[in-house]
Amino acid sequence: MPSAAYTPTDRTVPTRAAHKASYDKELVHAILDEGYVCHLGFVRDGAPVVLPTLYGRVGERLYVHGSTGSRPLRTAGKADPGPGDPGPGLAVCLTVTHVDGLVLARSAFHHSVNYRSVVVHGTARQVTDPEEKRLALDALVDHVVPGRSRDTRPANAKESAATAVIRLDLEEVSAKVRTGGVNDEPEDLALPHWAGVVPLRKGYGTPVPDPALAPGTEAPGYLPGLSG
Amino acid sequence: MPSAAYTPTDRTVPTRAAHKASYDKELVHAILDEGYVCHLGFVRDGAPVVLPTLYGRVGERLYVHGSTGSRPLRTAGKADPGPGDPGPGLAVCLTVTHVDGLVLARSAFHHSVNYRSVVVHGTARQVTDPEEKRLALDALVDHVVPGRSRDTRPANAKESAATAVIRLDLEEVSAKVRTGGVNDEPEDLALPHWAGVVPLRKGYGTPVPDPALAPGTEAPGYLPGLSG
Repeated sequence: MPSAAYTPTDRTVPTRAAHKASYDKELVHAILDEGYVCHLGFVRDGAPVVLPTLYGRVGERLYVHGSTGSRPLRTAGKADPGPGDPGPGLAVCLTVTHVDGLVLARSAFHHSVNYRSVVVHGTARQVTDPEEKRLALDALVDHVVPGRSRDTRPANAKESAATAVIRLDLEEVSAKVRTGGVNDEPEDLALPHWAGVVPLRKGYGTPVPDPALAPGTEAPGYLPGLSG
Repeated sequence: MPSAAYTPTDRTVPTRAAHKASYDKELVHAILDEGYVCHLGFVRDGAPVVLPTLYGRVGERLYVHGSTGSRPLRTAGKADPGPGDPGPGLAVCLTVTHVDGLVLARSAFHHSVNYRSVVVHGTARQVTDPEEKRLALDALVDHVVPGRSRDTRPANAKESAATAVIRLDLEEVSAKVRTGGVNDEPEDLALPHWAGVVPLRKGYGTPVPDPALAPGTEAPGYLPGLSG
């Protein structure tokens, strides 16, 4: 039984390699949940801008945060505009990419990488509801290290006021996945060049405690990298 | 003696955390040369699009390739337009990001990541000179695995015709770097929460040879992951 899927649109159906595209919600969520850095694109003065930033997912909503003084977040307006505040939002494209392997073919042309990516198109709007904002900030911290938000001092009023959170609903979404081995031309198979896939590994180094750690503070069990 | 630098412009000077910005060419080149996947942003029908793609650097030029049928590459026009071909190019923003560590502060607000990124603004144009195109394709392969391009079957005429290469000159460029430890507020230092930096590690798994490898083909010395 297929899981729920996003509805494809003109801009989520690729012009090529359409067989690599997927709209499966479970797959999209899994790719998003494995990461915490996205590349957020928006248009400024008619030109594209792409910035790396942290994100978090809560259900079918993505959250990105930043200083209330930053240009894209100011432009994004408010999530729940009142009568006097139309809150047009900010057109964005949010992309998350994991590179899983290097695909070395005998021919230069068929070199590739194995990857999984998600591209989200939509309109980002500022979150103004305090409870939603709190949950969004927790989600941002927990995306980086699951379980971490419960073991921190939460944002106080001043910090919360200085932080803008924008929301992007998961509606116009696609995933793209390349897996597997080398796709060389049949006539190239006898060539003497090595061909195959080099898997990529991600991991953690040993955590480096802050020198000013309060005496007796133990490394918590949720910390990545503890086993070396 | 400081090395050469790019000239800052309105859009390469950040509105905040300007102390993290750098225009140093050596630093920019080092960040670009450590990667091979960028996030390329452009504007389509007034909305931003951000796609992951491979890139290569040759001096002060970046190259990105793709199918001649892809929308952004078609739009990019030609690098050396003739009288009948104005070749307007495609406004792009090309961003490369390396995440080096997770910064876990006592306060949720001061959580961060250590990273190095480069953002390039400019106009991408199609490369039409055959020799430049050949060098660009070599650079793309060698960015993924240094030395690899010499050990492949080069693109033939048909493959070359099917591949569009666009060039983006390194002119309007900035790097942004966050390094170091936790920046908690003085009044939070005594809190019982663990704080510190978790370094991120990238590495390679053992290469998986193509099952149809020609008999006697040894793994070449330039292959990453050979030592496990």
